[in-house]
Amino acid sequence: MEKKTQVNAAIIIIGNEILSGRTQDTNTCSIALWLNSLGVKVQEVRVIPDVEEVIVKTINEVRKKNTYVFTTGGIGPTHDDITAASISKAFNLNYEVNKEAFKILESHYKLGEFNEGRQKMAWTPANAKLILNPTSGAPGFIVENIFCLPGVPSILKSMLVGLNNEISGGKPIISHTINLRTVESEIAKSLTSVQNINKDVEIGSYPFFRAGKLGVSIVIRSDEQSKIDICNSQILEFVNKKNIKIINRG
Amino acid sequence: MEKKTQVNAAIIIIGNEILSGRTQDTNTCSIALWLNSLGVKVQEVRVIPDVEEVIVKTINEVRKKNTYVFTTGGIGPTHDDITAASISKAFNLNYEVNKEAFKILESHYKLGEFNEGRQKMAWTPANAKLILNPTSGAPGFIVENIFCLPGVPSILKSMLVGLNNEISGGKPIISHTINLRTVESEIAKSLTSVQNINKDVEIGSYPFFRAGKLGVSIVIRSDEQSKIDICNSQILEFVNKKNIKIINRG
Repeated sequence: MEKKTQVNAAIIIIGNEILSGRTQDTNTCSIALWLNSLGVKVQEVRVIPDVEEVIVKTINEVRKKNTYVFTTGGIGPTHDDITAASISKAFNLNYEVNKEAFKILESHYKLGEFNEGRQKMAWTPANAKLILNPTSGAPGFIVENIFCLPGVPSILKSMLVGLNNEISGGKPIISHTINLRTVESEIAKSLTSVQNINKDVEIGSYPFFRAGKLGVSIVIRSDEQSKIDICNSQILEFVNKKNIKIINRG
Repeated sequence: MEKKTQVNAAIIIIGNEILSGRTQDTNTCSIALWLNSLGVKVQEVRVIPDVEEVIVKTINEVRKKNTYVFTTGGIGPTHDDITAASISKAFNLNYEVNKEAFKILESHYKLGEFNEGRQKMAWTPANAKLILNPTSGAPGFIVENIFCLPGVPSILKSMLVGLNNEISGGKPIISHTINLRTVESEIAKSLTSVQNINKDVEIGSYPFFRAGKLGVSIVIRSDEQSKIDICNSQILEFVNKKNIKIINRG
């Protein structure tokens, strides 16, 4: 069976600490790279505050437009962790103790240490499927196409691998990068021509400044290697004509 | 005249390279911290692709809900730089050569180097106000409440300072952080009580793992120092009762 050409996802970062600039989000990068490898394209990211009304509205807006939605943050034991309650509300589900999560957490902590705060982490929307957490015990959960993950980057990363079988991606997206010793304006016109004759390939141009020198990364992305190859040769053709140095490719 | 209590902003990060995970966004952090210092609260961030239709729709959605909107990315010389054209479309303005921008760029480059690619960077929505760029010449621009900035972090940062006089913020948001040697579940219940009796103060709880040890940062945010002080004493009260070590505060 041929795989679907495009499977889309949205990422919702829940947390005042990202909006205030206090914390630098890195979860977007981790989730996006992991999804790429499974043939899923991230088409939007939203960062929203720890406010129930906003979480409910955002979830209901993006879940219809995307095959998968990933949330990060707000599933810990404190008062500002309201993701599970908000997702319950978005789907009109009871917010209740998940017996499986309760057992996992109970066995994770020493006798007498499974206190009220920790018990809160066993609450999920009714009948949610759990996402196992090999790092710190407290599971994430899945409701329909929404995957709820914690905000702590190392814990989140440790949970993604276990989700591979839950994701049915399209063709993996392949990318090829050409790093050039030039500036964007030198190649803009030629690159536009290549994009115009290869409309279904995504060609990005990103200036950089490294070790005191200017350069441009051209990134070609497609789910078909042959299309990347065609763009690649067309780009190398004008690069050679213009005597631009290729720093590296790959 | 008393300042408005709350002035809100949205940040729109435009760029396939962020959505693909290739590039780690850091502009959200820079803009949010700068806005905080001016008394403006970021209430949402969106990362969207280099697609005109999506840019137009997103701009028209967020500009009505926010005092200020900041976009980053897509204002360079290449084919994937479509922010200026998209903003023109969102406001039904002509997309045209901005004479002032043209002059700035013309004088920035050596004779003969102001080529077609570079000239593209002089195009803005009709009558846009320019945002000067002390680093690389190419200006950003303002249309109504939308501020369009470049995606390269160092250039963006160099342009923010020049915008201070364009922003009319509310009361500056003050924040106080208490770092504790504990875990969230130990303080969750007491912290919830403090939040419940101080509903208009934002209290966040963020677990961390540093130098092999677990800890929790409690962040109190408000535009009134007295409210922060009240929360702070209430938190220190339960912290002392529980014999939790305070790592530092500030």
